[in-house]
Amino acid sequence: MPSHPIDHAGLETLPFEACLELLGSVPLGRVGFAADGELVVLPVNHAVDGQDVVFCTARGSKLAAAEEQGLVAFEADDYDQRTMSGWSVVMTGQATVVYEDAEIERLRRLGVHPWSTAVEHPFWVRIRPTSVTGRRIAGAGS
Amino acid sequence: MPSHPIDHAGLETLPFEACLELLGSVPLGRVGFAADGELVVLPVNHAVDGQDVVFCTARGSKLAAAEEQGLVAFEADDYDQRTMSGWSVVMTGQATVVYEDAEIERLRRLGVHPWSTAVEHPFWVRIRPTSVTGRRIAGAGS
Repeated sequence: MPSHPIDHAGLETLPFEACLELLGSVPLGRVGFAADGELVVLPVNHAVDGQDVVFCTARGSKLAAAEEQGLVAFEADDYDQRTMSGWSVVMTGQATVVYEDAEIERLRRLGVHPWSTAVEHPFWVRIRPTSVTGRRIAGAGS
Repeated sequence: MPSHPIDHAGLETLPFEACLELLGSVPLGRVGFAADGELVVLPVNHAVDGQDVVFCTARGSKLAAAEEQGLVAFEADDYDQRTMSGWSVVMTGQATVVYEDAEIERLRRLGVHPWSTAVEHPFWVRIRPTSVTGRRIAGAGS
């Protein structure tokens, strides 16, 4: 039985705390943003730091444009094809690059690796949420 | 050994045919688009139909706005945390709603289910690609 409200599509809507917990339960998410007039969606390894999502990526990527643009979207999900059950959380917020050495050192200890292991000098990005929404689909058997 | 060119971040860049094959190998992708001035990223169950990605979703969703906007981004990926290997494919293209009954019937037979099983009357969206890019990370052990 779902314990949270159901939306128009029959999906259970999750409270803020559950969204953050789910975001932190998977290593991989996708960040979406507009760059040079086009939409970009990129996979990143991430962690939850307080109420923020943090991830590291290669310098020179299109994410530099994202910082100038301001708002980005971050999505993580998990889906079991067998039971057709799963969840998805979307965070929208301001992306900022982390420059402080002490802060970068602290984030490193969260155990996040860049998507590409060949990135020797990744830069860290923090997304401070302005909205977080989560949906869970209970599956056909529940 | 990678068999395709390597980009600045050390990721193997995949040819068009390999991208389509990988897109078709997983049930779940994420569609990103701009709606009402905000970025949206939603999970969808999809299939590859020729060179297009097709998926079905609930009526009344923000995807109606996506159709008016034109360009959307679609991303699918797979990542093995143990070996730190994986791939990601991003398709950018025009989203159009499929209205023809015969075409909808054909798409239904591709075996795609909406993310929410409570959606009784999903509508079908086709993304015709204007660009497709794919990256593979071979992992630390290869």
